[in-house]
Amino acid sequence: MTDPGRTAILRAARKAFARQPYDAVTLRGVAADAGVSAALIVKYFGGKEALFERVADFTEAAQLLLAAPNERLGEHAVRTLIAYRRENDQDLLLRVVFAAGKGEDRALIREHFRDQVTRAFAARLTGSDAEVRAGLITAHLLGLGAVLAIDKTGPVAAADPADIARSYAPAIQQLIH
Amino acid sequence: MTDPGRTAILRAARKAFARQPYDAVTLRGVAADAGVSAALIVKYFGGKEALFERVADFTEAAQLLLAAPNERLGEHAVRTLIAYRRENDQDLLLRVVFAAGKGEDRALIREHFRDQVTRAFAARLTGSDAEVRAGLITAHLLGLGAVLAIDKTGPVAAADPADIARSYAPAIQQLIH
Repeated sequence: MTDPGRTAILRAARKAFARQPYDAVTLRGVAADAGVSAALIVKYFGGKEALFERVADFTEAAQLLLAAPNERLGEHAVRTLIAYRRENDQDLLLRVVFAAGKGEDRALIREHFRDQVTRAFAARLTGSDAEVRAGLITAHLLGLGAVLAIDKTGPVAAADPADIARSYAPAIQQLIH
Repeated sequence: MTDPGRTAILRAARKAFARQPYDAVTLRGVAADAGVSAALIVKYFGGKEALFERVADFTEAAQLLLAAPNERLGEHAVRTLIAYRRENDQDLLLRVVFAAGKGEDRALIREHFRDQVTRAFAARLTGSDAEVRAGLITAHLLGLGAVLAIDKTGPVAAADPADIARSYAPAIQQLIH
């Protein structure tokens, strides 16, 4: 994730595939938005279909967000989301919101989100209503990502991540137990 | 808000203006998406500029969400968001997330959100960091709206709103006090 060209391509691809139908997305368009050549996309990712598969996949996001024991999973997830946004200028999960709407490709992004993120949280929960609680955990995370995305220099984005975690993570932690 | 044509126009307009640049939006396109004639849009809203102003305005959303005393504002906001989604098949706030990106028109939607929603919550808060806390309140609400939008038949959407409020609203209530 440290190669700037690679990161720019993924960012542009996430935007393109979440907002446009699959058929309307072109490697040339993604390349222009990323400030690279289409050939570089082919070199890194192989082609349009492979690039879409990367965009529709939340495996890495889920691994990062869930890399902590349940006792401190809320804080870990919030801190990870903020750190990823700061380091990559993008959100781990928010592309699923932009993929709301019609189209099989968008449905696939939402399906992967449910299977790879929501169900991964649900699998960590014991007790009743694990699926609803997991859904609400993703709601808290998507909302924080949304505020960081729409107001990039606002009070939440400018605050100390530790303070945000202290205010925001207990709601997630509550849903875990 | 009970006229189905009016509601369909507003829904189509919110989608169009949040996802496309102002210049790319046409009354004809909004009308087609809403299943009405362009003339009906002119009759109800007056024209493209007036329609955009309605889309970019969150005054009504803020009034609905904030119509409760602070002691039960968290529960009220969550219940209002869910009820509005169920009655109108759309979200009170989520269009601001779709308006992330470039363009003066999108910036105006985000600016109005900050001034009309986030600052309206901040004005209800006492104590330190009111702006950060208000930002996090909107995060919780945007996240819930996002999950209801991306998984319309999922466990959160299917749950009893009273149960969702019981699980989700305390986080907002905590930020109010």
